[in-house]
Amino acid sequence: MGFWKSLFSNSDAAASQTIDPERETVVKTGDRAGDSRIFFSTEREIDLYELEELCDAVGWSRRPLRKVKKALQHSFLVVSMWEVRGSSNRLVGFARATSDHAFNATIWDVVVHPDFQNKGLGKALMKYTIKKLRSEDISNITLFADPQVVDFYRRLGFILDPEGIKGMFWYPD
Amino acid sequence: MGFWKSLFSNSDAAASQTIDPERETVVKTGDRAGDSRIFFSTEREIDLYELEELCDAVGWSRRPLRKVKKALQHSFLVVSMWEVRGSSNRLVGFARATSDHAFNATIWDVVVHPDFQNKGLGKALMKYTIKKLRSEDISNITLFADPQVVDFYRRLGFILDPEGIKGMFWYPD
Repeated sequence: MGFWKSLFSNSDAAASQTIDPERETVVKTGDRAGDSRIFFSTEREIDLYELEELCDAVGWSRRPLRKVKKALQHSFLVVSMWEVRGSSNRLVGFARATSDHAFNATIWDVVVHPDFQNKGLGKALMKYTIKKLRSEDISNITLFADPQVVDFYRRLGFILDPEGIKGMFWYPD
Repeated sequence: MGFWKSLFSNSDAAASQTIDPERETVVKTGDRAGDSRIFFSTEREIDLYELEELCDAVGWSRRPLRKVKKALQHSFLVVSMWEVRGSSNRLVGFARATSDHAFNATIWDVVVHPDFQNKGLGKALMKYTIKKLRSEDISNITLFADPQVVDFYRRLGFILDPEGIKGMFWYPD
Protein backbone atom coordinates (compact mmCIF):
# COMPACT_ATOMS: atom_id res chain seq x y z
CA MET A 1 0.00 0.00 0.00
CA GLY A 2 2.93 2.35 -0.53
CA PHE A 3 3.73 4.91 2.10
CA TRP A 4 3.00 3.65 5.59
CA LYS A 5 3.15 5.63 8.74
CA SER A 6 3.03 4.19 12.20
CA LEU A 7 1.60 6.16 15.05
CA PHE A 8 2.61 3.53 17.55
CA SER A 9 5.97 2.01 16.78
CA ASN A 10 8.99 3.71 18.31
CA SER A 11 11.26 1.65 16.11
CA ASP A 12 9.89 3.28 12.98
CA ALA A 13 12.43 6.10 12.71
CA ALA A 14 11.21 7.33 9.32
CA ALA A 15 7.69 7.72 10.56
CA SER A 16 8.68 9.51 13.74
CA GLN A 17 10.36 12.21 11.64
CA THR A 18 7.06 13.15 10.05
CA ILE A 19 4.59 12.32 12.81
CA ASP A 20 4.99 12.68 16.55
CA PRO A 21 4.25 9.42 18.31
CA GLU A 22 0.84 9.66 19.97
CA ARG A 23 1.03 7.01 22.59
CA GLU A 24 -2.13 8.25 24.26
CA THR A 25 -4.09 7.01 21.30
CA VAL A 26 -2.64 3.50 21.29
CA VAL A 27 -5.40 0.95 21.37
CA LYS A 28 -4.56 -2.72 21.56
CA THR A 29 -6.91 -4.68 19.39
CA GLY A 30 -5.67 -8.04 20.65
CA ASP A 31 -8.06 -10.95 20.90
CA ARG A 32 -7.71 -14.75 21.09
CA ALA A 33 -5.98 -14.70 17.70
CA GLY A 34 -3.23 -12.50 19.11
CA ASP A 35 -2.31 -8.83 19.09
CA SER A 36 -2.61 -6.67 16.05
CA ARG A 37 -1.30 -3.23 15.21
CA ILE A 38 -3.09 -0.27 13.69
CA PHE A 39 -1.48 1.85 11.01
CA PHE A 40 -2.53 4.99 9.23
CA SER A 41 -1.78 5.86 5.62
CA THR A 42 -2.27 8.92 3.43
CA GLU A 43 -1.83 6.85 0.28
CA ARG A 44 -4.86 7.65 -1.89
CA GLU A 45 -4.63 4.62 -4.19
CA ILE A 46 -7.01 2.55 -2.09
CA ASP A 47 -8.71 -0.58 -3.40
CA LEU A 48 -12.19 0.80 -4.13
CA TYR A 49 -13.87 -2.55 -3.49
CA GLU A 50 -12.24 -2.78 -0.08
CA LEU A 51 -13.45 0.76 0.67
CA GLU A 52 -16.95 -0.12 -0.53
CA GLU A 53 -16.95 -3.17 1.75
CA LEU A 54 -16.04 -0.93 4.71
CA CYS A 55 -18.83 1.52 3.86
CA ASP A 56 -21.28 -1.38 3.40
CA ALA A 57 -20.39 -2.58 6.91
CA VAL A 58 -21.72 0.65 8.43
CA GLY A 59 -24.78 0.69 6.19
CA TRP A 60 -23.93 3.56 3.86
CA SER A 61 -25.65 3.77 0.51
CA ARG A 62 -23.51 2.50 -2.33
CA ARG A 63 -21.98 5.10 -4.62
CA PRO A 64 -20.67 4.67 -8.18
CA LEU A 65 -17.01 3.59 -7.89
CA ARG A 66 -16.14 5.88 -10.81
CA LYS A 67 -17.27 8.85 -8.74
CA VAL A 68 -15.63 7.55 -5.55
CA LYS A 69 -12.35 7.27 -7.46
CA LYS A 70 -12.69 10.84 -8.73
CA ALA A 71 -13.53 12.09 -5.24
CA LEU A 72 -10.43 10.41 -3.78
CA GLN A 73 -8.24 11.89 -6.53
CA HIS A 74 -9.55 15.37 -5.81
CA SER A 75 -9.59 15.22 -2.04
CA PHE A 76 -6.84 17.22 -0.38
CA LEU A 77 -6.24 14.46 2.16
CA VAL A 78 -7.18 10.79 2.19
CA VAL A 79 -6.59 8.86 5.41
CA SER A 80 -7.00 5.14 5.74
CA MET A 81 -6.66 3.06 8.90
CA TRP A 82 -5.42 -0.51 8.70
CA GLU A 83 -5.22 -3.46 10.99
CA VAL A 84 -1.99 -5.34 10.43
CA ARG A 85 -1.99 -8.90 11.71
CA GLY A 86 0.98 -10.94 10.60
CA SER A 87 1.29 -10.37 6.87
CA SER A 88 -2.34 -9.39 6.28
CA ASN A 89 -3.67 -5.83 6.14
CA ARG A 90 -7.31 -5.00 6.60
CA LEU A 91 -8.93 -1.62 5.93
CA VAL A 92 -10.78 -0.75 9.14
CA GLY A 93 -11.23 3.02 8.91
CA PHE A 94 -11.29 5.91 6.50
CA ALA A 95 -11.63 9.69 6.30
CA ARG A 96 -10.94 12.33 3.68
CA ALA A 97 -10.92 16.10 3.40
CA THR A 98 -11.52 18.67 0.68
CA SER A 99 -9.61 21.92 0.94
CA ASP A 100 -8.49 25.13 -0.76
CA HIS A 101 -4.93 24.19 0.35
CA ALA A 102 -4.70 27.49 2.22
CA PHE A 103 -7.43 28.34 4.73
CA ASN A 104 -10.20 25.76 4.92
CA ALA A 105 -10.63 22.02 5.00
CA THR A 106 -13.83 20.02 5.27
CA ILE A 107 -13.72 16.43 6.50
CA TRP A 108 -16.02 13.90 4.80
CA ASP A 109 -16.76 10.18 4.92
CA VAL A 110 -15.42 9.33 8.36
CA VAL A 111 -15.96 5.63 8.96
CA VAL A 112 -14.69 2.97 11.36
CA HIS A 113 -15.61 -0.68 10.86
CA PRO A 114 -18.14 -1.85 13.49
CA ASP A 115 -15.71 -4.56 14.70
CA PHE A 116 -13.25 -1.79 15.54
CA GLN A 117 -15.57 0.77 17.10
CA ASN A 118 -15.51 1.67 20.80
CA LYS A 119 -11.76 1.08 20.99
CA GLY A 120 -10.62 4.68 20.60
CA LEU A 121 -9.78 4.14 16.95
CA GLY A 122 -12.23 6.73 15.64
CA LYS A 123 -10.57 9.24 17.92
CA ALA A 124 -7.11 8.17 16.71
CA LEU A 125 -8.25 8.42 13.08
CA MET A 126 -9.58 11.95 13.60
CA LYS A 127 -6.50 13.06 15.54
CA TYR A 128 -4.29 11.81 12.74
CA THR A 129 -6.48 13.61 10.16
CA ILE A 130 -6.42 16.88 12.12
CA LYS A 131 -2.65 16.62 12.58
CA LYS A 132 -2.10 16.16 8.85
CA LEU A 133 -4.32 19.16 8.05
CA ARG A 134 -2.57 21.31 10.65
CA SER A 135 0.81 20.30 9.27
CA GLU A 136 -0.34 21.77 5.94
CA ASP A 137 -1.09 25.08 7.68
CA ILE A 138 -4.89 24.67 7.42
CA SER A 139 -6.39 26.66 10.30
CA ASN A 140 -10.11 26.23 9.64
CA ILE A 141 -11.06 22.55 9.89
CA THR A 142 -14.76 21.93 9.42
CA LEU A 143 -17.21 19.06 9.05
CA PHE A 144 -20.89 18.23 8.98
CA ALA A 145 -21.77 15.85 11.82
CA ASP A 146 -24.71 13.51 12.02
CA PRO A 147 -26.61 14.05 15.30
CA GLN A 148 -25.31 10.84 16.90
CA VAL A 149 -21.65 11.83 16.45
CA VAL A 150 -21.82 15.50 17.48
CA ASP A 151 -20.58 14.64 20.99
CA PHE A 152 -17.79 12.48 19.56
CA TYR A 153 -16.51 15.44 17.54
CA ARG A 154 -17.05 17.83 20.44
CA ARG A 155 -14.71 15.74 22.60
CA LEU A 156 -12.10 16.11 19.85
CA GLY A 157 -12.30 19.91 20.06
CA PHE A 158 -14.87 20.61 17.37
CA ILE A 159 -17.28 23.43 18.19
CA LEU A 160 -20.95 23.27 17.25
CA ASP A 161 -22.21 26.37 15.38
CA PRO A 162 -19.39 28.67 16.60
CA GLU A 163 -20.62 32.27 16.88
CA GLY A 164 -23.92 31.09 15.48
CA ILE A 165 -22.42 29.92 12.17
CA LYS A 166 -24.79 27.32 10.74
CA GLY A 167 -24.20 24.41 8.41
CA MET A 168 -26.56 24.50 5.43
CA PHE A 169 -27.21 22.10 2.52
CA TRP A 170 -28.71 22.96 -0.81
CA TYR A 171 -31.37 20.84 -2.45
CA PRO A 172 -33.20 21.52 -5.71
CA ASP A 173 -36.55 23.34 -5.33
CA MET B 1 -10.42 39.28 -17.73
CA GLY B 2 -10.52 36.41 -20.16
CA PHE B 3 -13.65 34.33 -20.37
CA TRP B 4 -16.80 36.34 -19.80
CA LYS B 5 -20.27 35.02 -19.53
CA SER B 6 -23.37 37.14 -19.64
CA LEU B 7 -26.47 36.11 -17.79
CA PHE B 8 -28.46 38.89 -19.32
CA SER B 9 -27.58 39.43 -22.95
CA ASN B 10 -29.62 37.44 -25.47
CA SER B 11 -27.17 38.43 -28.20
CA ASP B 12 -24.38 36.48 -26.56
CA ALA B 13 -24.87 33.18 -28.36
CA ALA B 14 -21.74 31.56 -26.96
CA ALA B 15 -22.80 32.28 -23.40
CA SER B 16 -26.34 31.05 -23.91
CA GLN B 17 -24.95 27.67 -24.97
CA THR B 18 -23.35 27.17 -21.57
CA ILE B 19 -25.70 29.08 -19.29
CA ASP B 20 -29.44 29.42 -19.54
CA PRO B 21 -30.47 33.06 -19.46
CA GLU B 22 -31.92 33.87 -16.04
CA ARG B 23 -33.94 36.93 -16.74
CA GLU B 24 -35.66 36.74 -13.38
CA THR B 25 -32.39 37.67 -11.74
CA VAL B 26 -31.74 40.77 -13.86
CA VAL B 27 -31.24 43.77 -11.68
CA LYS B 28 -30.81 47.16 -13.24
CA THR B 29 -28.17 49.10 -11.39
CA GLY B 30 -28.84 52.34 -13.24
CA ASP B 31 -28.43 55.65 -11.49
CA ARG B 32 -27.86 59.27 -12.58
CA ALA B 33 -24.65 58.20 -14.33
CA GLY B 34 -26.63 55.86 -16.60
CA ASP B 35 -27.42 52.16 -16.74
CA SER B 36 -24.83 49.50 -16.10
CA ARG B 37 -24.77 45.78 -16.69
CA ILE B 38 -23.72 42.99 -14.39
CA PHE B 39 -21.60 40.12 -15.61
CA PHE B 40 -20.36 36.94 -14.00
CA SER B 41 -17.06 35.23 -14.65
CA THR B 42 -15.46 31.97 -13.60
CA GLU B 43 -12.00 33.22 -14.54
CA ARG B 44 -9.82 32.62 -11.47
CA GLU B 45 -7.00 35.02 -12.36
CA ILE B 46 -8.51 37.88 -10.37
CA ASP B 47 -6.52 40.96 -9.38
CA LEU B 48 -5.84 40.16 -5.72
CA TYR B 49 -5.72 43.82 -4.73
CA GLU B 50 -9.14 44.41 -6.27
CA LEU B 51 -10.46 41.39 -4.36
CA GLU B 52 -8.89 42.66 -1.15
CA GLU B 53 -10.55 46.03 -1.69
CA LEU B 54 -13.92 44.31 -2.05
CA CYS B 55 -13.38 42.33 1.15
CA ASP B 56 -12.21 45.47 2.95
CA ALA B 57 -15.46 47.16 1.94
CA VAL B 58 -17.48 44.61 3.92
CA GLY B 59 -15.10 44.72 6.88
CA TRP B 60 -13.42 41.32 6.54
CA SER B 61 -10.06 40.78 8.18
CA ARG B 62 -7.18 41.03 5.75
CA ARG B 63 -5.53 37.79 4.72
CA PRO B 64 -2.06 37.24 3.25
CA LEU B 65 -2.36 37.64 -0.53
CA ARG B 66 0.00 34.69 -1.00
CA LYS B 67 -2.53 32.45 0.75
CA VAL B 68 -5.50 34.02 -1.04
CA LYS B 69 -3.78 33.29 -4.36
CA LYS B 70 -3.22 29.67 -3.34
CA ALA B 71 -6.83 29.32 -2.19
CA LEU B 72 -8.13 30.62 -5.52
CA GLN B 73 -5.86 28.26 -7.44
CA HIS B 74 -7.14 25.29 -5.45
CA SER B 75 -10.80 26.20 -5.33
CA PHE B 76 -13.00 24.09 -7.58
CA LEU B 77 -14.99 27.13 -8.64
CA VAL B 78 -14.25 30.85 -8.46
CA VAL B 79 -17.09 33.22 -9.33
CA SER B 80 -16.67 36.96 -9.67
CA MET B 81 -19.41 39.51 -10.34
CA TRP B 82 -18.61 42.66 -12.26
CA GLU B 83 -20.32 45.92 -13.01
CA VAL B 84 -19.61 47.00 -16.56
CA ARG B 85 -20.19 50.67 -17.24
CA GLY B 86 -18.89 51.85 -20.57
CA SER B 87 -15.37 50.49 -20.86
CA SER B 88 -14.76 50.13 -17.12
CA ASN B 89 -15.21 46.92 -15.12
CA ARG B 90 -15.59 46.92 -11.37
CA LEU B 91 -15.46 43.85 -9.12
CA VAL B 92 -18.65 44.01 -7.05
CA GLY B 93 -19.11 40.42 -5.87
CA PHE B 94 -17.29 37.16 -5.29
CA ALA B 95 -17.80 33.56 -4.22
CA ARG B 96 -15.77 30.37 -4.43
CA ALA B 97 -16.21 26.68 -3.68
CA THR B 98 -13.99 23.80 -2.67
CA SER B 99 -15.00 20.35 -3.88
CA ASP B 100 -14.02 16.73 -4.38
CA HIS B 101 -15.16 17.18 -8.01
CA ALA B 102 -17.62 14.32 -7.54
CA PHE B 103 -20.08 14.53 -4.64
CA ASN B 104 -19.61 17.58 -2.43
CA ALA B 105 -18.91 21.27 -2.76
CA THR B 106 -18.60 23.85 -0.01
CA ILE B 107 -19.12 27.53 -0.80
CA TRP B 108 -16.82 30.06 0.89
CA ASP B 109 -16.19 33.80 0.88
CA VAL B 110 -19.48 35.04 -0.51
CA VAL B 111 -19.32 38.83 -0.70
CA VAL B 112 -21.26 41.62 -2.42
CA HIS B 113 -20.02 45.21 -2.26
CA PRO B 114 -22.21 47.33 0.07
CA ASP B 115 -23.04 49.72 -2.83
CA PHE B 116 -24.54 46.75 -4.66
CA GLN B 117 -26.41 45.05 -1.84
CA ASN B 118 -30.23 44.92 -1.63
CA LYS B 119 -30.57 44.82 -5.42
CA GLY B 120 -30.92 41.05 -5.83
CA LEU B 121 -27.29 40.67 -6.86
CA GLY B 122 -26.34 38.40 -3.96
CA LYS B 123 -29.17 36.11 -5.03
CA ALA B 124 -28.00 36.25 -8.67
CA LEU B 125 -24.41 35.50 -7.60
CA MET B 126 -25.50 32.47 -5.57
CA LYS B 127 -27.83 31.20 -8.32
CA TYR B 128 -24.97 31.41 -10.80
CA THR B 129 -22.65 29.60 -8.37
CA ILE B 130 -25.20 26.84 -7.72
CA LYS B 131 -25.85 26.46 -11.45
CA LYS B 132 -22.15 26.06 -12.17
CA LEU B 133 -21.78 23.42 -9.43
CA ARG B 134 -24.86 21.56 -10.63
CA SER B 135 -23.53 21.59 -14.19
CA GLU B 136 -20.48 19.74 -12.85
CA ASP B 137 -22.76 17.05 -11.40
CA ILE B 138 -22.19 18.11 -7.78
CA SER B 139 -25.27 17.07 -5.82
CA ASN B 140 -24.30 18.05 -2.29
CA ILE B 141 -23.78 21.82 -2.09
CA THR B 142 -22.96 23.03 1.39
CA LEU B 143 -21.89 26.17 3.20
CA PHE B 144 -21.43 27.65 6.64
CA ALA B 145 -23.69 30.68 7.10
CA ASP B 146 -23.25 33.53 9.54
CA PRO B 147 -26.43 34.03 11.59
CA GLN B 148 -27.48 37.20 9.72
CA VAL B 149 -27.47 35.46 6.31
CA VAL B 150 -29.16 32.17 7.25
CA ASP B 151 -32.52 33.46 5.95
CA PHE B 152 -30.90 34.71 2.74
CA TYR B 153 -29.57 31.22 2.02
CA ARG B 154 -32.82 29.60 3.12
CA ARG B 155 -34.68 31.60 0.48
CA LEU B 156 -32.25 30.20 -2.10
CA GLY B 157 -33.17 26.63 -1.12
CA PHE B 158 -30.48 25.90 1.47
CA ILE B 159 -31.67 23.82 4.40
CA LEU B 160 -30.47 24.49 7.94
CA ASP B 161 -29.16 21.37 9.73
CA PRO B 162 -30.97 18.87 7.46
CA GLU B 163 -31.85 15.69 9.40
CA GLY B 164 -30.03 17.18 12.36
CA ILE B 165 -26.66 17.35 10.56
CA LYS B 166 -24.62 20.02 12.32
CA GLY B 167 -21.81 22.23 11.11
CA MET B 168 -18.75 22.00 13.35
CA PHE B 169 -15.41 23.84 13.42
CA TRP B 170 -12.22 22.64 14.98
CA TYR B 171 -10.03 24.85 17.13
CA PRO B 172 -6.86 23.90 19.00
CA ASP B 173 -7.38 22.87 22.65
